[in-house]
Amino acid sequence: MNKGSGVTAPKGFIAAGLHCGIKPDGASDLALIFSQAPAIAWGAFTLNKVKGAPVLLNKAHLKSASTRAIVVNSGNANTLLLDGYENAVQMARVTSDRLGIKPSETLVASTGVIGQPLPIKKIERGIMDVASHLRPGGGKDAARAIMTTDTRLKEASKSFVMGSRRVTVGGCAKGSGMVHPDMATMLAFVTTDAAISKPVIKEIVKRANEVSFNSITVDGETSTSDMFILLANSASGASLIEKPSGAQYSKLLDKVSAVCIDLAQKIAHDGEGATKFITVDVAGAKDYGSAHKVAKRIARSNLVKTAMFGEDANWGRILCAAGCAGVDIDPMKSTLKIGGVAIFRKGSLASADWEKKVRPHIKKKNIKISLDLGYGKAKARVWTCDMTYDYIKINADYRT
Amino acid sequence: MNKGSGVTAPKGFIAAGLHCGIKPDGASDLALIFSQAPAIAWGAFTLNKVKGAPVLLNKAHLKSASTRAIVVNSGNANTLLLDGYENAVQMARVTSDRLGIKPSETLVASTGVIGQPLPIKKIERGIMDVASHLRPGGGKDAARAIMTTDTRLKEASKSFVMGSRRVTVGGCAKGSGMVHPDMATMLAFVTTDAAISKPVIKEIVKRANEVSFNSITVDGETSTSDMFILLANSASGASLIEKPSGAQYSKLLDKVSAVCIDLAQKIAHDGEGATKFITVDVAGAKDYGSAHKVAKRIARSNLVKTAMFGEDANWGRILCAAGCAGVDIDPMKSTLKIGGVAIFRKGSLASADWEKKVRPHIKKKNIKISLDLGYGKAKARVWTCDMTYDYIKINADYRT
Repeated sequence: MNKGSGVTAPKGFIAAGLHCGIKPDGASDLALIFSQAPAIAWGAFTLNKVKGAPVLLNKAHLKSASTRAIVVNSGNANTLLLDGYENAVQMARVTSDRLGIKPSETLVASTGVIGQPLPIKKIERGIMDVASHLRPGGGKDAARAIMTTDTRLKEASKSFVMGSRRVTVGGCAKGSGMVHPDMATMLAFVTTDAAISKPVIKEIVKRANEVSFNSITVDGETSTSDMFILLANSASGASLIEKPSGAQYSKLLDKVSAVCIDLAQKIAHDGEGATKFITVDVAGAKDYGSAHKVAKRIARSNLVKTAMFGEDANWGRILCAAGCAGVDIDPMKSTLKIGGVAIFRKGSLASADWEKKVRPHIKKKNIKISLDLGYGKAKARVWTCDMTYDYIKINADYRT
Repeated sequence: MNKGSGVTAPKGFIAAGLHCGIKPDGASDLALIFSQAPAIAWGAFTLNKVKGAPVLLNKAHLKSASTRAIVVNSGNANTLLLDGYENAVQMARVTSDRLGIKPSETLVASTGVIGQPLPIKKIERGIMDVASHLRPGGGKDAARAIMTTDTRLKEASKSFVMGSRRVTVGGCAKGSGMVHPDMATMLAFVTTDAAISKPVIKEIVKRANEVSFNSITVDGETSTSDMFILLANSASGASLIEKPSGAQYSKLLDKVSAVCIDLAQKIAHDGEGATKFITVDVAGAKDYGSAHKVAKRIARSNLVKTAMFGEDANWGRILCAAGCAGVDIDPMKSTLKIGGVAIFRKGSLASADWEKKVRPHIKKKNIKISLDLGYGKAKARVWTCDMTYDYIKINADYRT
């Protein structure tokens, strides 16, 4: 039985992480994830028009029938500079040579400061080294090596029984600032030992991404480099899921979504400088897209996030932010609750002492904001964190 | 000769401001601006789907052939609550009764906390009182009474000679947080003693607004209540400008734009917690709209604004933010300068010692960011401020 956590929880995946010399403080900065069995992969990528070189390379490599390895450096985003693509190609080439696979079977990711020359020689030496450390218990080392301003390592896993086989889904992620949903907006690598077809993996990536990584925001900033990759290697021995329908498909989609949501929540929890974790529920919308837009707009509002930091139930800012989502909103139809306490209902304060009632909730670490638009039945949920002095501190001093 | 400043700089406008009892600290919170001669008016309003009651009322009142008065309270935004519209109507009614004009000749504005019941009785008494204080030198008192988190009073004026007459444009504005360009995004009242037709005033409002109030951002938040109103009363005796073309029209448009840009810059200078004033120039765009979108996206980026506070020329964040504007951007065509120092040019760092060269500039109070996209000839300019600990402080503690 596999004793690994995160990406090494599913059978047949090994990983490693170490310091190769990018981060000046000697922290881990190079991760390698490897599937011992042939695997297929799919991904979702940043919608930023300025894309990091690894994003461009991976889009090409994902056309390959098989994917075996993901090599990731932190501390440098390898983006914007002329030699970025060449460097990403070189990372894939050195990794594939070392592992005896094809370059097209290797995916690459880089995260960290933007626009700095990449120390490719250090990374090349690091790849030779990290490959020697690949092991079934290496998920945690890989998860640690992809961190930048993260204060906590982020892993998740779930398993379920399919026929007579146990199928496992595991993953790791990084992300703390520059996090705003527009497809994937951080790094997340999820593995499974399920056996699935290419159409199924594509559908699962799309659907799991929407309800997880596309449903968090820290600061409304979409990075150039970020991605969510799912690898499936069939090592569980469970039977092949060929089409995106049916009970087994639904079960796997649920588990992958659950792992992704767990990782996404961990990213929001660890938002730069965060002291509170905020869940924004929008209901009563005409459709999911409208509900999601409104929830995301509330969740990225600096004024809502600073008010939550101040433990101030300044609910008018929530409706004001909602009004900027580009979706129809009528305060005369809307109901707003914080922590289950009704504050505003269809143009009136819900009670004279709403502020007293909401106070115990607003002082908690986990805050729930619920807005019912009063139009229809669709709903969406988004997660964020508060905005604090430490967000400013972290980002004013990032490179020093 | 009129000795007034701001809105009372042009002939035939009088104003006043005082404390009517809304703000707990006893600061001025009620302003009245009055045109002694019949005047015409036009306005630009927030694009937030949740609009304050005064915005809705003014849209109706601006259909009137004549506008004589603007009554403004600060400390309470009169928005979201059922009785908001009724209260705005009541403010117009009491004002027009007191001044002997029609309700439809009166415009109303409210700014401050959202969703609090409006103390209408205090405002009614205040209107009776403030009307007694109207005077040609009252522009400053009115400008003071519309302030909320503003730390500085904001006025501007310009004049020019038209035929044998001196024509003056003057204005006041408030705005510090919740400022992001989507039509008007704060309160700005501009007066002129020029004689102009309705088509001319509409065109001037649209064009002056675009290059001024639509070109600033403090925090990416668009208020529910905000507006820019232009009043023209012909009191200069200068001849009527009937059409939006010709030398006299251009001269007046220039002066109104100059007053609006002056006020808009004052708002960005006074951004909540700001220590720096930032000018973002985007050139080389396919069209003005694209240039403006990219400039606004850079200017509202928390990561760019915190880096400027930290005096860190973290230029990658500027290109990253630009990439999120929804406009085509290719780093291989782009050139980025800070303070005139080239940092990044078409995929390469412009020099090995760019950081040393840019350091003296990044430490200044006024910072210039220039991005050339390398596509075409269009350009746009936007103003913002840095994001600091005090932005968090002001907004975490706003209501306490």
